[in-house]
Amino acid sequence: MSPPPATAARLYVAADLAPGAPIALDVAQAHYLRNVLRLAPGAAVALFNGRDGEWTAAIDDLGKRAALLRCQVQRRPQLPEPDLWLLFAPIKRLRIDYLVEKATELGVAELQPVFTRRTVASRLNLARLVAHAVEAAEQTERLSIPVLREPQGLAERLAAWPPGRRLLLCAEAGPSRPIADALEALAATPAAARAGAVLVGPEGGFTAAELDDLGKLPFVTPVGLGPRILRADTAALAALACWQAILGDGRDPRPLRR
Amino acid sequence: MSPPPATAARLYVAADLAPGAPIALDVAQAHYLRNVLRLAPGAAVALFNGRDGEWTAAIDDLGKRAALLRCQVQRRPQLPEPDLWLLFAPIKRLRIDYLVEKATELGVAELQPVFTRRTVASRLNLARLVAHAVEAAEQTERLSIPVLREPQGLAERLAAWPPGRRLLLCAEAGPSRPIADALEALAATPAAARAGAVLVGPEGGFTAAELDDLGKLPFVTPVGLGPRILRADTAALAALACWQAILGDGRDPRPLRR
Repeated sequence: MSPPPATAARLYVAADLAPGAPIALDVAQAHYLRNVLRLAPGAAVALFNGRDGEWTAAIDDLGKRAALLRCQVQRRPQLPEPDLWLLFAPIKRLRIDYLVEKATELGVAELQPVFTRRTVASRLNLARLVAHAVEAAEQTERLSIPVLREPQGLAERLAAWPPGRRLLLCAEAGPSRPIADALEALAATPAAARAGAVLVGPEGGFTAAELDDLGKLPFVTPVGLGPRILRADTAALAALACWQAILGDGRDPRPLRR
Repeated sequence: MSPPPATAARLYVAADLAPGAPIALDVAQAHYLRNVLRLAPGAAVALFNGRDGEWTAAIDDLGKRAALLRCQVQRRPQLPEPDLWLLFAPIKRLRIDYLVEKATELGVAELQPVFTRRTVASRLNLARLVAHAVEAAEQTERLSIPVLREPQGLAERLAAWPPGRRLLLCAEAGPSRPIADALEALAATPAAARAGAVLVGPEGGFTAAELDDLGKLPFVTPVGLGPRILRADTAALAALACWQAILGDGRDPRPLRR
């Protein structure tokens, strides 16, 4: 098979991708192609929607406020991706933006904000976080964008926990298992492979009562990340990176570059 | 042994720490204790210098532009730390600040900027990066700050490479070994344990010639981090987190909280 043609950009779209399908871009995407990348009709762009793999599309029409692309050929089929969730307490704006970007690069399937006892933020700008996730997914060549769930209380979220999914709790106190040991043990259990979750608390950490309650849940494994006290975002990224390397798709090959 | 007394802050100082030793703080530290934390003489502060462990000190005098502390008792002895280096090409300002902060939290012993073929930045504000590293080390409870080396050309740096230290190359192209496999293999070699290095390129990646040259060096192992294309800073953090979890101090217990 010859490699797919080079493309000047890679965009996430919601529409179905199929041979000849017309794809309308939104204002921001049209602006990006026209004014940032300075593309013209005829130029090739890669598209993905999380369902139909990655496609080459050609620019048919490129106006100031809209653009029309036409789907041509599939470049890569949609492949199953690790089903890894990140549960995180809302933290300060710059750190949460960074966390969403990095978690997306590290292949998180769902971002689930949860309110804990010491969570300071009371609301989240979900649209801004989605925009960060989409941009990161476009850059990282993944074939999906992570689902961003509505924020929930932690207890409420855990009350409806799906059976069989292991939740790694990044615990800053209390008994815990080294993360590499916990992941290697899970790797020996086929059911756990490629379906998991990581939970990190807010800047102030979990309360002792929260840690106590979490430790009693049969699907929770408190994990330790070594002797340093990590910020919430650092703990999340470290745990996600280890999960992917040991249990996720860290052994899968890289796709062809566009 | 009773736990050490609670302290209101944790600061890095250059001076020797010993019973009764007077410690002069600089303007920024004095400002932080007085105006940010609103401490007064008599308050207890934790100090570390990378050599003498962590000490409790009491504020003797706290002026607008200077402060004098007096060392009291050692809270924690200095312990050996993993000897992990990060070699990184200078990247954009916000990303490099974040990289230095996160690498410090993840326990990097040396930060070594290297210029590669596609490195855009031609100089680095080392003082700003040191300030970020110190702040992160203070927060993360580690007993040292990372050494920040003067930037060097990559080839020059590799020409003087110390024998026995394995360099994990985060390669975005070419043959590579999954990082978990590479680290598990190294874990079986006692010499490699707790002395290693990670290398990441600039935004544009390494050139094909650079990757080719790097792959020929006997101390280099190109590693893969899965099918997603990671930004340079993300790749560095993922590799450092995996290194610490599998080969470093990821299995060590957490220290007592102050």
